[in-house]
Amino acid sequence: MPHISLGNDAPGILSLFEYRPETALPLCDLAEVLLRGPSSLTRGERELIASYVSTLNDCDFCASSHAAFAAAQLPEGMTLVDQVRADPAGAPVSAKLSALLAIAAAVQRSGKDVRDEEVTAAREAGATDVEIHDTVLIAAAFCLFNRYVDGLATTLPADPAGYAAMAEVIVSSGYGAAGPAGR
Amino acid sequence: MPHISLGNDAPGILSLFEYRPETALPLCDLAEVLLRGPSSLTRGERELIASYVSTLNDCDFCASSHAAFAAAQLPEGMTLVDQVRADPAGAPVSAKLSALLAIAAAVQRSGKDVRDEEVTAAREAGATDVEIHDTVLIAAAFCLFNRYVDGLATTLPADPAGYAAMAEVIVSSGYGAAGPAGR
Repeated sequence: MPHISLGNDAPGILSLFEYRPETALPLCDLAEVLLRGPSSLTRGERELIASYVSTLNDCDFCASSHAAFAAAQLPEGMTLVDQVRADPAGAPVSAKLSALLAIAAAVQRSGKDVRDEEVTAAREAGATDVEIHDTVLIAAAFCLFNRYVDGLATTLPADPAGYAAMAEVIVSSGYGAAGPAGR
Repeated sequence: MPHISLGNDAPGILSLFEYRPETALPLCDLAEVLLRGPSSLTRGERELIASYVSTLNDCDFCASSHAAFAAAQLPEGMTLVDQVRADPAGAPVSAKLSALLAIAAAVQRSGKDVRDEEVTAAREAGATDVEIHDTVLIAAAFCLFNRYVDGLATTLPADPAGYAAMAEVIVSSGYGAAGPAGR
């Protein structure tokens, strides 16, 4: 049960977006530009980083929902998402994505855990400065989203099929559709 | 030295806002509504929570800058800010603010560390549901900002007086003025 009376039955962060539309708007804008805006990282790759960091933060709602969003936008689908979440070092991703996942894992622990070594490895694997920047910010953003969702003890969808339904909306309409009253 | 070439000499998050204006806009909007928008928590109290969480995350730039923003907007000034950062349980703040600081500290560790006990204590000390919500989101947001600033190894101001100068801008003009080209 949520720690406060949210006045709605939506699961996870959706209940918080309905409860406090003033803060929902910039949060949805941030998700939209970071995860779906113009980038040399694909939307599937960015959602994979989001789901991976949420897994490290043990946030069921965010890990499962962004796993669904990643699977819907990656050619390899949920098989790859599950592999990355369980064993990122052994998962069949590009050397660049593997190095970016290592940066994301460092950010999840602490910003100061990102060392020159991880950044150099990503650059040598072909990552650009903007890709490194965006990876750090995606990982940092999910340290917000995960704490927001769990810090207020929001609920999970009654039916796990709800995540795939959310993925359809996000893939077709973006994060603006997740905000208060679909914006 | 920053991990990537930011193309400017601004300190801390200001350098990242100049580097990536697309993400700066929602981040500044979030800071504005959370820390300065309509609320029954004063702006000084909200900045105090921000500086406290940044201190727990060992983020020098955010802890010092939001300490300056808090001091500029609290009657007790920097003396109280220093006390809260060093020893929140012993600092002379209201029972309500003390309970909200305890919630913020839990969020800093993990969303799941916020237990019914901390929420009940805050409510018994007079905190409203919106105040509890906003405290969780401020603490979560600084888990983003702190990781963003340190994860890319941004620089500190050459002169610590720079924090007080930033405080003047934030207090008079808000976080929109911190964004790319002052919006």
